Amino acid sequence: MEQTSESEVVTEPAEDRSGRIARRVLLANLGIATAGALTVAGFRLSGRSAAAYQAAPSPVHNHATTTTPSASGTPAPVATTAPADHDAVHQAATAAFPVKTQGQGLQELESRVVAGVREFDLVAGKVRWEVTPGKFFDAEAYNGQVPGPIIRMTEGERVRVRVKNQLDDSTAVHWHGQRVPNSMDGVPFITQPPIKPGETFTYEFTAGPFGSHMYHSHHNATEQVGRGSLGPLIVAPNDKSVDPQYDKDEFFIFNDSLGGLTINGKGFPATFPYTAKLGQRIRFRFMNEGTMIHPAHLHGLTLEVFARDGYPLPAPFKCDTLNVAPGERWDAIVVADNPGVWAFHCHILTHAEGSAGMFGMVTALIVS
Amino acid sequence: MEQTSESEVVTEPAEDRSGRIARRVLLANLGIATAGALTVAGFRLSGRSAAAYQAAPSPVHNHATTTTPSASGTPAPVATTAPADHDAVHQAATAAFPVKTQGQGLQELESRVVAGVREFDLVAGKVRWEVTPGKFFDAEAYNGQVPGPIIRMTEGERVRVRVKNQLDDSTAVHWHGQRVPNSMDGVPFITQPPIKPGETFTYEFTAGPFGSHMYHSHHNATEQVGRGSLGPLIVAPNDKSVDPQYDKDEFFIFNDSLGGLTINGKGFPATFPYTAKLGQRIRFRFMNEGTMIHPAHLHGLTLEVFARDGYPLPAPFKCDTLNVAPGERWDAIVVADNPGVWAFHCHILTHAEGSAGMFGMVTALIVS
Amino acid sequence: MEQTSESEVVTEPAEDRSGRIARRVLLANLGIATAGALTVAGFRLSGRSAAAYQAAPSPVHNHATTTTPSASGTPAPVATTAPADHDAVHQAATAAFPVKTQGQGLQELESRVVAGVREFDLVAGKVRWEVTPGKFFDAEAYNGQVPGPIIRMTEGERVRVRVKNQLDDSTAVHWHGQRVPNSMDGVPFITQPPIKPGETFTYEFTAGPFGSHMYHSHHNATEQVGRGSLGPLIVAPNDKSVDPQYDKDEFFIFNDSLGGLTINGKGFPATFPYTAKLGQRIRFRFMNEGTMIHPAHLHGLTLEVFARDGYPLPAPFKCDTLNVAPGERWDAIVVADNPGVWAFHCHILTHAEGSAGMFGMVTALIVS
Repeated sequence: MEQTSESEVVTEPAEDRSGRIARRVLLANLGIATAGALTVAGFRLSGRSAAAYQAAPSPVHNHATTTTPSASGTPAPVATTAPADHDAVHQAATAAFPVKTQGQGLQELESRVVAGVREFDLVAGKVRWEVTPGKFFDAEAYNGQVPGPIIRMTEGERVRVRVKNQLDDSTAVHWHGQRVPNSMDGVPFITQPPIKPGETFTYEFTAGPFGSHMYHSHHNATEQVGRGSLGPLIVAPNDKSVDPQYDKDEFFIFNDSLGGLTINGKGFPATFPYTAKLGQRIRFRFMNEGTMIHPAHLHGLTLEVFARDGYPLPAPFKCDTLNVAPGERWDAIVVADNPGVWAFHCHILTHAEGSAGMFGMVTALIVS
Repeated sequence: MEQTSESEVVTEPAEDRSGRIARRVLLANLGIATAGALTVAGFRLSGRSAAAYQAAPSPVHNHATTTTPSASGTPAPVATTAPADHDAVHQAATAAFPVKTQGQGLQELESRVVAGVREFDLVAGKVRWEVTPGKFFDAEAYNGQVPGPIIRMTEGERVRVRVKNQLDDSTAVHWHGQRVPNSMDGVPFITQPPIKPGETFTYEFTAGPFGSHMYHSHHNATEQVGRGSLGPLIVAPNDKSVDPQYDKDEFFIFNDSLGGLTINGKGFPATFPYTAKLGQRIRFRFMNEGTMIHPAHLHGLTLEVFARDGYPLPAPFKCDTLNVAPGERWDAIVVADNPGVWAFHCHILTHAEGSAGMFGMVTALIVS
Repeated sequence: MEQTSESEVVTEPAEDRSGRIARRVLLANLGIATAGALTVAGFRLSGRSAAAYQAAPSPVHNHATTTTPSASGTPAPVATTAPADHDAVHQAATAAFPVKTQGQGLQELESRVVAGVREFDLVAGKVRWEVTPGKFFDAEAYNGQVPGPIIRMTEGERVRVRVKNQLDDSTAVHWHGQRVPNSMDGVPFITQPPIKPGETFTYEFTAGPFGSHMYHSHHNATEQVGRGSLGPLIVAPNDKSVDPQYDKDEFFIFNDSLGGLTINGKGFPATFPYTAKLGQRIRFRFMNEGTMIHPAHLHGLTLEVFARDGYPLPAPFKCDTLNVAPGERWDAIVVADNPGVWAFHCHILTHAEGSAGMFGMVTALIVS
């Protein structure tokens, strides 16, 4: 998350920074400027009605209000006792957003160039993955991350990926979207024998085509991809002019299987919000690694869609709801030209909001 | 329904007019010119076989045959006794189409301009909604309509919408597709406190972007939108030339939740057919407020799709089956250049035709 | 299958040819050059690990290795005893691919021109259809085929299709995508009486628009289409220049109902693989006759999509994952510029690979 296209080094954990920003903007939006209002119970809005809110001189959009957010890394926990009512549960989850959980996927994967070949190492292994606070599942993931680490290469570059299997079962990796030699395609018994537990298989190919692609297990795939054996594979184009200009490079990866309904491996309120400064251009790389379609709906801003499965669209289009089918990737630019906390969620409402408030495939883009 | 782009005043209830037209054309299509053939049981075709039908000199397409349709507003009821066979049940439902039910959504919402601001009033309340004859559900709807009334504004216009909550639960309204100030975005605990029962919240924003948008609850949304808290929000462009020319302006809103499988709040045979005169150009505004994709299939004619989520497509395309995902809007022109009763339905067959004949997401476009 | 655009006569059953090719390439890919390795149990790879495979001097892509495939028409059966483990079951299915089953859909339908009208005969009847080895279901199909035979006509041509109903129930045929006269549209009780058992109904219309269309039952359609009452209707354009150039013309028809998850009427490993010589251009006609979306993902090659529902796209696009919704048709060119056995499957993983290996909507494009 948060990387610019120049791979700026992030020195602060992304969830801490965006969490602080999220809470600060949320407080300002809701007109709460005193730190004392922020408790475990959330924003203490229970005593304030919408009518009272509108009657008061509201500092809405006054983002300069000084607030004392909760200590970084210790966000308000979601209430675990039986809720008095829907609003209270909803409020608590929203107040806690983005709540910290163990584990963060989508870390940049290190590589080294050996004799002209860029080398990566992936380890397929088991990890207990925390989806929302206290809710763990038995993930099967690359390098302990869900989604797996970001693999970046450049079009035409020779690459080598060593995949060590530390699972209890066989596996194999498919480079979804890449035009590899058939023997490197990762389909057991069709293009290679499966990688048995303890074994290492080395994939080698020339990167291409450019764009937003994926890697994932192609063995017992409902189970393994469902458990998190997936990640993004990004191929930078040789001709930079094929891409629109952007300031930030972000991922929006849907999954809906054994870890439940997630964006980038987490369910609301543990999803990571995106942040941008007013006027910045953000590139979103949408990917669906699940088993259902998920239409991503962004509030208050516009998606300018320019690539499909990595291929530049001959006729880029605008929308606010982008349907992403399993296996598809879509690239869009969002110009952060409207300040605020913009909900960003799957518009299948059963994936986003239930009787106990928002959950699952909900996050936000915070423009400050 | 039935409004032209110039907001022609409709003096006759739409269901009555289209009902009469539908029955007249159906009779002509089936070669029945005597009023006596039309009974409660339907078209009395049970004694006529397809073979006999073809052997007879058929007046098919002779739309000038004089028939005496059933009295307007009292269409043939759907048989409620156990059917002798599939065909009889199917025939009865088809003969009854469009059967009258209580309640009609999509009525034009009145507005007034006060000191340069266009004002609307919405009341979120409960209503028993009749989906098909005798099948009611507990709807939560705006102004007693499912879908809610049509809100029309003009790009760049200042608008104010007062939302009174007469539900038993909190609510909030999201202006899906509009680029509003964050505090007007309608997401409880993120951009505003929820509107509690009995309260009124006033939304105010500048209309834009133009095109086909939606408004709906963003609070406990699976439940509230599922129960009908939704409607179309139409923003006329300042530059009329962005739209193709059209004679009629129609809506095609899918929902699939607590009221079952519906188009514009009704299930077949209570859906409202669309009507057009030969050569007319109809604009259809497709919207999906449900939880599943719905591919709209139009028989015999062509959809010329020109906008997505309100944004003009840089490369408009033609099709006959238009997949609409939850949250999406698509605009298309249909040139009514082929006379007849054209089935218009979701092509997920389980949403349209079962063992007891057609039901749910089925309607027709009648070109006369 | 396998027809060129010039309707080359195929003298060898398609499944035999592609089966032999598939097995030869698979063996080469996996580095097995001795015929003795091929047994009922599959490729006998159980004793070979991925590590050993990579250590050996692998003749991958050496398609000239001489192998003795199993006798044409008697492929390795899928193991029916309880599998020792996932890999063994998966391997057996893959080794058997393409396993022979009874019945082949998509045969070219003969026609004759009588007094300027091209005539076809369809018989809707019952047939026991084998989806995978030993798995039969009670199909309702045209001319005993699932999918039904390929009907080819030319834009503007007058055509006549006699449909004889040999089912136990009524039926009717809709020409999905064609702009027929209303009385020929095939919707019982709307445009015609149903065709009762034993009856024949004659449809007559002028072919158009050109492109990839479908015919299917529009009566009790969930049941009848679900049981196989469907087929492709291809209208050749008068102006050949509207189509890109291609060497082969192939179908990729999804269904997901009563016969289970199928491509062209068969489930893996009984699906028919596509074959091409290096450099050939293949036209794929994707159609969805099911009740769910199915994103077709092609490994290692690129889909160049040029038509939607038969209509040429104003902005053709490239992708590797093409989402096909029920009722939609998409046409794409694949240039076979990368040799090997390329998996080609629905990317909803629950439709393609389960705990017992690949199944359902999986096939391959074999480039040799």
